Amino acid sequence: MTIRACGLAGSLRRGSYNRALLRAAVALAPAGLEVVVFDRLADVPLYNADVEATGDPEPVVALKAAIREADALLIVTPEYNYGVPGVLKNAVDWASRPPDRSVLAHKPTAIMGASPGRTGTARAQLALRQSFVFTQTPVLPGPEMLVAEAHRKFGDDGSLTDERTRQSVTELLQRFLAWAERLRIG
Amino acid sequence: MTIRACGLAGSLRRGSYNRALLRAAVALAPAGLEVVVFDRLADVPLYNADVEATGDPEPVVALKAAIREADALLIVTPEYNYGVPGVLKNAVDWASRPPDRSVLAHKPTAIMGASPGRTGTARAQLALRQSFVFTQTPVLPGPEMLVAEAHRKFGDDGSLTDERTRQSVTELLQRFLAWAERLRIG
Amino acid sequence: MTIRACGLAGSLRRGSYNRALLRAAVALAPAGLEVVVFDRLADVPLYNADVEATGDPEPVVALKAAIREADALLIVTPEYNYGVPGVLKNAVDWASRPPDRSVLAHKPTAIMGASPGRTGTARAQLALRQSFVFTQTPVLPGPEMLVAEAHRKFGDDGSLTDERTRQSVTELLQRFLAWAERLRIG
Amino acid sequence: MTIRACGLAGSLRRGSYNRALLRAAVALAPAGLEVVVFDRLADVPLYNADVEATGDPEPVVALKAAIREADALLIVTPEYNYGVPGVLKNAVDWASRPPDRSVLAHKPTAIMGASPGRTGTARAQLALRQSFVFTQTPVLPGPEMLVAEAHRKFGDDGSLTDERTRQSVTELLQRFLAWAERLRIG
Repeated sequence: MTIRACGLAGSLRRGSYNRALLRAAVALAPAGLEVVVFDRLADVPLYNADVEATGDPEPVVALKAAIREADALLIVTPEYNYGVPGVLKNAVDWASRPPDRSVLAHKPTAIMGASPGRTGTARAQLALRQSFVFTQTPVLPGPEMLVAEAHRKFGDDGSLTDERTRQSVTELLQRFLAWAERLRIG
Repeated sequence: MTIRACGLAGSLRRGSYNRALLRAAVALAPAGLEVVVFDRLADVPLYNADVEATGDPEPVVALKAAIREADALLIVTPEYNYGVPGVLKNAVDWASRPPDRSVLAHKPTAIMGASPGRTGTARAQLALRQSFVFTQTPVLPGPEMLVAEAHRKFGDDGSLTDERTRQSVTELLQRFLAWAERLRIG
Repeated sequence: MTIRACGLAGSLRRGSYNRALLRAAVALAPAGLEVVVFDRLADVPLYNADVEATGDPEPVVALKAAIREADALLIVTPEYNYGVPGVLKNAVDWASRPPDRSVLAHKPTAIMGASPGRTGTARAQLALRQSFVFTQTPVLPGPEMLVAEAHRKFGDDGSLTDERTRQSVTELLQRFLAWAERLRIG
Repeated sequence: MTIRACGLAGSLRRGSYNRALLRAAVALAPAGLEVVVFDRLADVPLYNADVEATGDPEPVVALKAAIREADALLIVTPEYNYGVPGVLKNAVDWASRPPDRSVLAHKPTAIMGASPGRTGTARAQLALRQSFVFTQTPVLPGPEMLVAEAHRKFGDDGSLTDERTRQSVTELLQRFLAWAERLRIG
């Protein structure tokens, strides 16, 4: 039985390395794992509890549905200011909220990230893991997927050309699949 | 000479305890410190480097100007999912960016926060401090201002009624003023 | 089949609430879970790679064996200076090291903690989780076990008297047992 | 007037890059700054409140005195398991304690670190900064001193040979001196 993972990238930039890394994950997913990208974070408004009280805006409804209906969650995050981008954190903030019980609870999750620098979004990934302690989301333990010096790993068309990184992504996705299968609810 | 501090609250909710706490800080500011609230975070769009490349949107221009022209920065943050709210992080992400040198660099800053629970936004404040390491923003050291059980500290009209908390806010603002004076550039 | 968990408490003080909490966990463990305390952290020397190069000191050999032979790990940590106590971190530092592959890798783990204050070691627990990302140790997701105002929860003889906390410990151990069973290797 | 800084390195290994980096800082200190190494962390016992209650052990007395009498604190930390080494955290835990008011409070502090890997102890430094929020210790804001790929930066005799790193250390020490002067008490 196939595990369906909802894929989110935390950057809105068209040429983003992180969006490119998520596309690579879609292509490299092993048999038994399907990654489906939710590509509408740009439409999700800033979280406002007064707005929420009148009903979730449509893009939030779509985001929550995409996560709820998936077996697992794959997040690809840039690092902004040693933390999770506001864009991505805002999506997590909405997704964590009632009226449903949080769609993030118990959802097996993996995290990846790419940056031009040396640290490959290490700090942002740890900050995101901290949020997932609150939401009761089981995140795949290390080794982490830290794509450093991203400008050397991707081609001009955004394809992941570095062979060693392709191998690392493949291995991470295999571990993610095993993680999701082990933690499948029911 | 008066220190002018730009005040930001990380919640958009009208009845937010954190917005109320910021208003209390405006009122309790000691002689020599003036807190001026920038109340337009709701207008700041999600950060997108492609948009930025065509020029900062007007609310971002206003945000950067408000921080640049202030001597100091006072941030009041809720805690969402053990982290900084996406709303606030998004504002920090914009503020940290060129074309100017980051308006956050070297800006003396203090952090406060209020929550209904026991921990008073402790984790969010630490996460925010981490971002300010990157931006080279000197944040007032502890003791921190963690307003726990906020529903018992504020009146129905949003005024800070708890005497002990009022005293703590006053003391924090005095330390903040001394911090800003010591670190004043030039 | 019973899951055997190695129990570590991060305080050396005889009257420590955290040691008391670990004893409570031993007593409250549900059928199928046995918690065996390793009570020799006081004998583990400060980590020194030069010493390690000449062979692990006996208490380190014993610590590694206790973890290796257990199916799971239960850590009860105080919070010192918003972090993991040096005593406990030092034990983790030794346990994470070769010649064997780290005994911490893939070991299902749960964390608890008690403090006299309001936050119940929240920050220390998050810091410890960060170390366990490096060691590839799968830590039970939230909700966390944060025993605040510990002086009101334990009797003078160190027994856990607060009924609600006893219930919370029991529930955490049940979740821990299910977590260890799901992640059992092989 | 000269600022005297107490220097601590968080590794006990004789050939440690971090001890070598601290020695380099001693040599590169600009006029007006003197770094005096406290090199006895190996003698500091594991923190135990029962022992403390009978009086600080002699090495702890010496550690506290070294910090108390210094104008500032310079810490050079390795990264173990994405955190502060237990050895160093243990020293911080002792130093933070009464009977005196903590010798760490209000002590201007800078942090450096070296590692063979790419991240240069980035995570350990952030974890250490978190402890210094509790102790009310003002830590020099970024940019941080992250010496990555340390094996390429030091000679076989432990001298810092990489010219660019020497320049960075010099610049950090200049900023540290200005920081300590600005925050000098009284």
